[in-house]
Amino acid sequence: MKQKILDTSIHLFDKKGFTETSVQEIVEALDVTKGSFYYYFKNKQELLTDIHLNFIEFLLRNQEEILQDESKNCQEKLRAMIFMVIHSIKGRKKSARIFFREMRNLEKAYLEQNVQKRDQFRKNFQTLIEEGIEKGEFQTGMNPDMVTRGILGMTNWSYYWFDPEGDISADELTTIYLEMILNGINKKD
Amino acid sequence: MKQKILDTSIHLFDKKGFTETSVQEIVEALDVTKGSFYYYFKNKQELLTDIHLNFIEFLLRNQEEILQDESKNCQEKLRAMIFMVIHSIKGRKKSARIFFREMRNLEKAYLEQNVQKRDQFRKNFQTLIEEGIEKGEFQTGMNPDMVTRGILGMTNWSYYWFDPEGDISADELTTIYLEMILNGINKKD
Repeated sequence: MKQKILDTSIHLFDKKGFTETSVQEIVEALDVTKGSFYYYFKNKQELLTDIHLNFIEFLLRNQEEILQDESKNCQEKLRAMIFMVIHSIKGRKKSARIFFREMRNLEKAYLEQNVQKRDQFRKNFQTLIEEGIEKGEFQTGMNPDMVTRGILGMTNWSYYWFDPEGDISADELTTIYLEMILNGINKKD
Repeated sequence: MKQKILDTSIHLFDKKGFTETSVQEIVEALDVTKGSFYYYFKNKQELLTDIHLNFIEFLLRNQEEILQDESKNCQEKLRAMIFMVIHSIKGRKKSARIFFREMRNLEKAYLEQNVQKRDQFRKNFQTLIEEGIEKGEFQTGMNPDMVTRGILGMTNWSYYWFDPEGDISADELTTIYLEMILNGINKKD
């Protein structure tokens, strides 16, 4: 039931917005009582936090697996991370949109857990960049924090436009972005 | 008065959200009558559209000036465009946030004008990439559409985190992003 409430809410929040969707509408869509809702969630804030945490924790688990994979060098890990973010749009487009859009509707206490995990996600990316510099795969003299934010911008932004059913697959987009990030667009002499 | 209504609404929409802000609250904050509001705007939709159009038209005007500047090569134009987007956060952070966040609250008729201008902004960027390829400044064999979306992701995402009063200036961030886009992060042999 909890998962059903989550799924239905994700659908409604994506369609109508968090503020505009009432608990009443969620339970009506599921044909259950309000009691069922409040058995699992204290309020809408807790529900939204759960949606956010499920999404970011899913990304973090995948990311940590990639970071710890000793068979990959840093370029390969970077590829895997970019692909993971872009590919996750396929199954989790609505969750992702709610994640980016409704963050500001979370009250402080609920927001803090999310912000902490979001920061962790960024820091894991940055750790990879720093590892690559240290191991001589990536250039020295870069600002790893800003470079990380640039890469995250490219990948996160794809949530706004990327259509996994369109002309370009997640794999092709990853190849294009990775090539751009590694070698740039300048003509090589 | 029209500009005052726009400014106050930008402030309220950014703080509380578009849906959560009533015309009543806007006129109260300004200490004017509802009549004054409806003299300038048919409804909240028209007001939100105006905020969006003001923002995107400001970016488009700047962008077209850069594109037409014959004293610059494509790398320099790219630098100017990236700087323009990042720098515009300083004066227009709230407008930018509303632009990205509240787009989905626009009804179809209002939305269309916006989407058309947004597309134009992306296409202008793409034109520059294509020009650079043609002139031999940028690599051949790239997908200009996807490369453009990558660059836009980096710059647009900065609205979510960039603090013009922070440690890194808009100019420094532009230099970092431009270097990354032109030459990539790979160690050069």
